[in-house]
Amino acid sequence: MNVSDRTFLVHLGGKITIQPTLPIKNRDDLSKVYTPGVARVCTAIAENPKKAYSLTIKRNTVAVVTDGTAVLGLGDIGPHAAAPVMEGKAMLFKQLAGVDAFPICLDTQDTEEIIRTIKAISPIFGGINLEDISSPRCFEIENRLAEELEIPVFHDDQHGTAVVVIAGLLNALKVVGKRIENIRIVVNGIGAAGVSICKMLLQAGVTRLVPVDREGAIVRGGTYAHPMWQWLAEQPQVESTEGTLQEVIQGADVFIGVSRGRLLKAEDVKKMAPQSIVFAMANPDPEITPEEALPHVAVFATGRSDYPNQINNVLVFPGLFRGALDCRARRINEPMKLAAARAIASVVSAAELNEHYIIPSIFNEQVVIQVRKAVIEAAILTNVARRTPPEFR
Amino acid sequence: MNVSDRTFLVHLGGKITIQPTLPIKNRDDLSKVYTPGVARVCTAIAENPKKAYSLTIKRNTVAVVTDGTAVLGLGDIGPHAAAPVMEGKAMLFKQLAGVDAFPICLDTQDTEEIIRTIKAISPIFGGINLEDISSPRCFEIENRLAEELEIPVFHDDQHGTAVVVIAGLLNALKVVGKRIENIRIVVNGIGAAGVSICKMLLQAGVTRLVPVDREGAIVRGGTYAHPMWQWLAEQPQVESTEGTLQEVIQGADVFIGVSRGRLLKAEDVKKMAPQSIVFAMANPDPEITPEEALPHVAVFATGRSDYPNQINNVLVFPGLFRGALDCRARRINEPMKLAAARAIASVVSAAELNEHYIIPSIFNEQVVIQVRKAVIEAAILTNVARRTPPEFR
Repeated sequence: MNVSDRTFLVHLGGKITIQPTLPIKNRDDLSKVYTPGVARVCTAIAENPKKAYSLTIKRNTVAVVTDGTAVLGLGDIGPHAAAPVMEGKAMLFKQLAGVDAFPICLDTQDTEEIIRTIKAISPIFGGINLEDISSPRCFEIENRLAEELEIPVFHDDQHGTAVVVIAGLLNALKVVGKRIENIRIVVNGIGAAGVSICKMLLQAGVTRLVPVDREGAIVRGGTYAHPMWQWLAEQPQVESTEGTLQEVIQGADVFIGVSRGRLLKAEDVKKMAPQSIVFAMANPDPEITPEEALPHVAVFATGRSDYPNQINNVLVFPGLFRGALDCRARRINEPMKLAAARAIASVVSAAELNEHYIIPSIFNEQVVIQVRKAVIEAAILTNVARRTPPEFR
Repeated sequence: MNVSDRTFLVHLGGKITIQPTLPIKNRDDLSKVYTPGVARVCTAIAENPKKAYSLTIKRNTVAVVTDGTAVLGLGDIGPHAAAPVMEGKAMLFKQLAGVDAFPICLDTQDTEEIIRTIKAISPIFGGINLEDISSPRCFEIENRLAEELEIPVFHDDQHGTAVVVIAGLLNALKVVGKRIENIRIVVNGIGAAGVSICKMLLQAGVTRLVPVDREGAIVRGGTYAHPMWQWLAEQPQVESTEGTLQEVIQGADVFIGVSRGRLLKAEDVKKMAPQSIVFAMANPDPEITPEEALPHVAVFATGRSDYPNQINNVLVFPGLFRGALDCRARRINEPMKLAAARAIASVVSAAELNEHYIIPSIFNEQVVIQVRKAVIEAAILTNVARRTPPEFR
């Protein structure tokens, strides 16, 4: 290790630390926070487990859980190597939204064991953020946990990405003056993020959707082994015309790429409808470079920080969990995610909005404030909130 | 809940919090601690998993794990109600020894599932502190984890109590001028703590040991269903004369009680050998009160903070884990525990030592310093240290 490397330097010893909320100065303090005084607090929770939300860290604590199988663009690098990403996420949770997040890196890749383990460790946590778990196992793990636990479970690679893509899309459509009901939209890469993006697009009112994976378009009426692809093939808004990506992108208003590698050329985006929108989110190399795409498209975005319009899920998870924790949501449902997307979009004012500025900065403090508010309102409306924070009463 | 109650007040919102080690002030910071910069750190660990010790929180982080089955004197109160004890422990770990400790409260009481779960979550942790897990499951859980994991696993209710009892006993023997090889010692309550105390006493050189449980003395040559009792019955230092507690305590030099309830009367301790030592550690009510015992015994100690000579395992776990983490010990073995006991005893100087002061205060900063040093030296000598801290080279 090159210790003069600044990136390695900030990682030495890890990036988070655990602090007592108050000092233990003497025996009297000790007898309150530990034995014998703590016994009365334990008894109060044993009599009414809901009190764990007021008398323990549960109210504000989220597990950031991975099995290390799909870390960044690196793939299956294992639980130890995944830890720096989870710690980075914990830093962002705290700095941006005041959420205490702790990394849990699992030494198992067995779906049932992952589910069992997360259920077993759940009592101290107010929410579970799943991270970098490979597809298709991530769907089963998230769905089962959402059913079997009474705290929010959120696979960020699926839904965090989907929420921020929809946020960016809502603003991009304003820039080009199109309505979501009228557009034809191609989503390329129907894995963890792609499935969630398609679902949210349908929720948001899209009427002409073309999901594409390596074999070409997933078409209405087709038969697919992958259960989520089959689900898409049964949706009336999904188009029924087969074709390769290069074929189906012709005439499309929007392209959203969450796949891998340079898949598009200038000639492909040239054939899209006028005033086209391209989100080339592949990591680390977008499906098409801005240099190639920009002459031909009206709005262009990527996942990268070195181009304009960075579609970054750091805009989502801090405020989303802040809201879910504050209203003690049982789960995070589609209306809450859509509310979060609209809230992120709303932070860019009409006066500021233009083709190079469709999405706010992650350092804009309004993002967490607005996402939290929208998520709580949606949770209350859809009856998943177990607590109404004072300002919503 | 009575919110004007000061003990409840200090628990509101929980007693620990998670903090980033540095702020993320701008995009440049973000690209170091999170994507894209973090990818290089992940890759370095994937290539050499040992680097997790320098580049993640593993080096300094301990899980405080319970299943909530044997919490304080309260018994099986469940994982949510156990959390305040685990959080209190995490506070002490940090304040006294700088160790980051995170509470894991398990929603399962199945031995195999507890073992599987702890193994699955182990990658982020540098050590496992088991806490308040009922006997006899605690033995199997600790032994299996110690075998199957390459990080220290320590059941505090067994060994923390044993270490501090031995520390107090070493000093009490100095007060009365007896040698450990010559004493006859009764240990009452052969559960989690009692078994570990008996083992450490044998390690420390005791030649006449009388373990007692509800059925009376456990005797050499006897046959017992409980595997640890059977093990005791096979030790040459264990006496072979049967009898009730009241019978076998006659003529004993030392009584150590880790049972439950008021089991002894003044007339029982009166029949002990001259200059007798009584450690009445039952929680919350000692086996005999100081008022009844003190006229007849030379040294008296309890687990309570409101009597002199508090035998408190808070003296053990912070320094023990500090030492084990600093030398990356593979496990915590008997020599390391005995070294910790001797180090605690050594903090009370010969000049200070008297029958009312056999054990240092938990606020004495020399305790963690000396325990850490002794534990590291013992770990190096017994070849369980994977790293030699600079000052030991």
